[in-house]
Amino acid sequence: MDGIFITHYDTREYISPIDRNSLHVKVKCAAAADCSVSIVYWNKFRNEFKEGRLESLSLGGPSEFYSTTLAFDEPAKYLSYYFVIRHGDDRFYYSPYGLADQLPAKHFEYPSTNVDDVFTVPAWAEGSVGYQIFPERFGNGDAGNDPPNVAKWNDPPTRDNFMGGDLRGIIERFSHLRDLGIDIIYLTPIFCSPSNHKYDTTDYFKIDPSFGDTEDLKELVALCHSHGVKLVLDGVFHHIGYYSYQFQDAILNGKDSPYWSWFFIQGDTVDTKAVNYECVGYYKWMPRLNFSNPDVRTFFLSVGEHWIREAGIDGWRLDVADEVDFTFWQEFRRRIKGIDSNLLLIGETWKNGADLLRGDQMDTIMNYRFRDAVIDFFANKSIGRAAFARRIESMLFDYPLASRNVLYNLLGSHDTARFLTVCKENIDTFKLAIVFQMTFPGMPFVYYGDEIGMTGETDPLCRKAMAWDSANAMISEFYKNIIRIRHGSNALRYGDFKHIDTASELYGFIRTYEDETIIVLLNNDQEDCLITGEWLNERASVSVPDSDTVEIPANSYEILSLIREGEGHAVRRMAIELKEQPERQFKNRS
Amino acid sequence: MDGIFITHYDTREYISPIDRNSLHVKVKCAAAADCSVSIVYWNKFRNEFKEGRLESLSLGGPSEFYSTTLAFDEPAKYLSYYFVIRHGDDRFYYSPYGLADQLPAKHFEYPSTNVDDVFTVPAWAEGSVGYQIFPERFGNGDAGNDPPNVAKWNDPPTRDNFMGGDLRGIIERFSHLRDLGIDIIYLTPIFCSPSNHKYDTTDYFKIDPSFGDTEDLKELVALCHSHGVKLVLDGVFHHIGYYSYQFQDAILNGKDSPYWSWFFIQGDTVDTKAVNYECVGYYKWMPRLNFSNPDVRTFFLSVGEHWIREAGIDGWRLDVADEVDFTFWQEFRRRIKGIDSNLLLIGETWKNGADLLRGDQMDTIMNYRFRDAVIDFFANKSIGRAAFARRIESMLFDYPLASRNVLYNLLGSHDTARFLTVCKENIDTFKLAIVFQMTFPGMPFVYYGDEIGMTGETDPLCRKAMAWDSANAMISEFYKNIIRIRHGSNALRYGDFKHIDTASELYGFIRTYEDETIIVLLNNDQEDCLITGEWLNERASVSVPDSDTVEIPANSYEILSLIREGEGHAVRRMAIELKEQPERQFKNRS
Repeated sequence: MDGIFITHYDTREYISPIDRNSLHVKVKCAAAADCSVSIVYWNKFRNEFKEGRLESLSLGGPSEFYSTTLAFDEPAKYLSYYFVIRHGDDRFYYSPYGLADQLPAKHFEYPSTNVDDVFTVPAWAEGSVGYQIFPERFGNGDAGNDPPNVAKWNDPPTRDNFMGGDLRGIIERFSHLRDLGIDIIYLTPIFCSPSNHKYDTTDYFKIDPSFGDTEDLKELVALCHSHGVKLVLDGVFHHIGYYSYQFQDAILNGKDSPYWSWFFIQGDTVDTKAVNYECVGYYKWMPRLNFSNPDVRTFFLSVGEHWIREAGIDGWRLDVADEVDFTFWQEFRRRIKGIDSNLLLIGETWKNGADLLRGDQMDTIMNYRFRDAVIDFFANKSIGRAAFARRIESMLFDYPLASRNVLYNLLGSHDTARFLTVCKENIDTFKLAIVFQMTFPGMPFVYYGDEIGMTGETDPLCRKAMAWDSANAMISEFYKNIIRIRHGSNALRYGDFKHIDTASELYGFIRTYEDETIIVLLNNDQEDCLITGEWLNERASVSVPDSDTVEIPANSYEILSLIREGEGHAVRRMAIELKEQPERQFKNRS
Repeated sequence: MDGIFITHYDTREYISPIDRNSLHVKVKCAAAADCSVSIVYWNKFRNEFKEGRLESLSLGGPSEFYSTTLAFDEPAKYLSYYFVIRHGDDRFYYSPYGLADQLPAKHFEYPSTNVDDVFTVPAWAEGSVGYQIFPERFGNGDAGNDPPNVAKWNDPPTRDNFMGGDLRGIIERFSHLRDLGIDIIYLTPIFCSPSNHKYDTTDYFKIDPSFGDTEDLKELVALCHSHGVKLVLDGVFHHIGYYSYQFQDAILNGKDSPYWSWFFIQGDTVDTKAVNYECVGYYKWMPRLNFSNPDVRTFFLSVGEHWIREAGIDGWRLDVADEVDFTFWQEFRRRIKGIDSNLLLIGETWKNGADLLRGDQMDTIMNYRFRDAVIDFFANKSIGRAAFARRIESMLFDYPLASRNVLYNLLGSHDTARFLTVCKENIDTFKLAIVFQMTFPGMPFVYYGDEIGMTGETDPLCRKAMAWDSANAMISEFYKNIIRIRHGSNALRYGDFKHIDTASELYGFIRTYEDETIIVLLNNDQEDCLITGEWLNERASVSVPDSDTVEIPANSYEILSLIREGEGHAVRRMAIELKEQPERQFKNRS
């Protein structure tokens, strides 16, 4: 048993319902040598034993991440189980008492699945393509509401200046979003606030006048909905603006203020110089809110509900979600999902977001972990194929299957350098990463302007005004085409994901959904690569003609669609852009 | 790095607040050779690095379970950290990207502690001694409310017969409980139900007439409280009785019944022969409740609140807690703790209860895992010292530190054979296990009658009428004395726990609280054992006179209290019962 380290607990992280009648079971198994993992399971009232083999996230090469789905003809209950690890002729058994070479006396147990135990996310969001807008910088549709001293549209952005962007600007530019093919828009905050970013809210029930009013929001929502597009707003509930009436009242009235206990203030009065109150990262303009105060809960539950009922928005992106009481999110989810289970909840986090993805808080998280891995592999080339694959598999494993197809997979945001800049403006690298993002499971999000080739280091330079007049048509076309390909493929949108043996010449993966199979091959190396059908058959467990070939030059990609033909598959190359070789078919070698 | 397998996630299971200003950090580390684990951590806004060594749950020998506490002078936030594993001259670093021999580029993160993020349990319950009563069998205080055809008090129990026990009987026998020294009483269900066990409730708002009425309950609560004893009732909310008005209405009115959707019924009418509805273990008399129905939630939230407000009970033991929607328990906890944070919530589970112990559901669980380990080691001797220690350490590691001192550690219940029977009536084995239970961290629970030597196989034989007339005085005295010792020792009640090297001749552990140190040595072997001070000093890291000795015969125990004396400690033996050697001091050898 030396050299086998296996982890599974009979807790929600490792065994969880997909629906009432089926379970997803996960096992982490690091073994010195090749081994297989299977589960033996039975209903303890019936003792009919079944065995199921777990699959790893990779079709070859090492993987620690195994899982399987168990289906039943009634709601899952009274399940007993253990695992069998086969290695050559050896068999080991894994139970709550650990790894042993004998059948275990004690078994893991799964008691029962109730209706609300099932982690469900809005079906409409699965695999959809999103777009993040920083409203002050997207479009200025109404010069009449511009703040005083507004800068010129293409002036360099500073932390404090204003460009005049507003909701009307988004409405006017909607056709750009429609042409791009996006399904969901997320707006950074739009409620009253003195800043250009509006993360220091002063009135949660009013849209900032420089952005428009409730009627404008309703119009934007109606426009979105008429094109099947969803709109999500930014809920900044972790802290409030210094100039909110609540904090101002605490400053003015001290402990007599009804809002005093909304905050964490030391002493008897607010000392705005010494900053004797908790805030965001020691930043005095954003006092932190105390969610153990029922009034604070009530207030933000009502904010959450208000804009859904008033303007028909489709959900919330929740700012610094991992710094807010988790029991508040539980209450918030119940309230919001009680209005409509199709409302989407996206939590901001920059770390492992598993705490938010237990089924009782967020539907999904802003997946910066995805971005980190993509930057290290594609942009910086600081990690190789195997390390990248492990990072991706570890991420998929850590998060519940239910959230996989809604992971907010981003390459940049208002809080990071723009991705083209991270790529040192290397277009090939940029495109490889976009292909990865748009063919990977989840909800790929485009940060406004990335699709027209905008650049910029981090805040404030990532918040330039949308460069409508200098759009890069090639990049724009590339985005439109890859999004169109994603929309046209159930495999890319909803399909299963498996790595092709990443010890090979290419990084690649295979996506399958019912009869549809897509293979994505990314050559992140400096050497050209010639792929044969034989190679594909071996590494991706498919059956295409052995002699077919396709060349994948250094720093390029290929998306292959496998079409069932007789006993095997024919391969069709999916063109994102016009290449030197315009053929749509593999060519026969010789 | 081969041979080191380390697990930590920056999620609530592995890093969680003890209070707003301190964190408990856990790491599982299985290594082929001795190594040490430490954490390097800093506030990412301040970059003042600190390093802290993690401690294992064992003072020697192998342990996989490491933890430490990090204390701050403000609420914990913006923490970045990684781990260092030292092995000889080698150093390895563990980060979200895995184990490496170089300083990690990416760090674990702990964002922030909010007030309600802290898992708090009632302080009064920590380390207290509990007593479980099956009311139909404890005492018959009012013959007037006996069911018809009541059996004689000491008749053999059957699944269906009645003995006449009631609340008045508990009131009358209260001095027995007071003499025993218990702090908390848990009554199995007392609400209206046709069965003797009353797990098939028909009216949650009324005490079964054969047990008494609300006034009796109030009197019992007042009696308990006047002696500082708490009373907890059994909340059977997972299912309801077949004869409840709700289920009867569904039978009578089919889909027109307002209670139809309280249940999971297939078809248009209830078929009580084919049993076309979900129930407990396919047992038709207990239809399962649908907690996704808001009416069901409202009903049981009000039951939960009612008996607290009406009768002043101190909490709930919640039946088959692991089969009820976890989001309901979240709501239930908020409601109950909103009344009084000192109310105790105990969840029934027979498995790893970590899902219930996340801080948002139960305070504690019925710890059958504790019982399983004790039976295997002491009663069956099917596992040795090292395996037992590993099971105990694994259990302590899996559960949050907050719940450790309230774990409902039981050796038997109304659902198991009695522990003396499990021990094949071997009194020495029985006593060893009781010493372990009463000196281990948690809330040891006595099943009524165990303390007077009652025997019985599982249900119905574990539910005999309390054998008031044939109490075993020796066992009774033993219980009183060990409970008295526990009550007299902060180390036993609240102290830290560490195993003494379990590869040694004895199973032992050390409990420390401030200046108090207790060492518990259990000789579960067939050979007598002579312990010297030198041995103790080496294995338990204490400093007592090297030449002191104490003999611990086969199948016996010793509880040693270390009293500070000059630079070192003097050792005092704590007598539970009169032994052949009545000395209270270690004797000097020679």
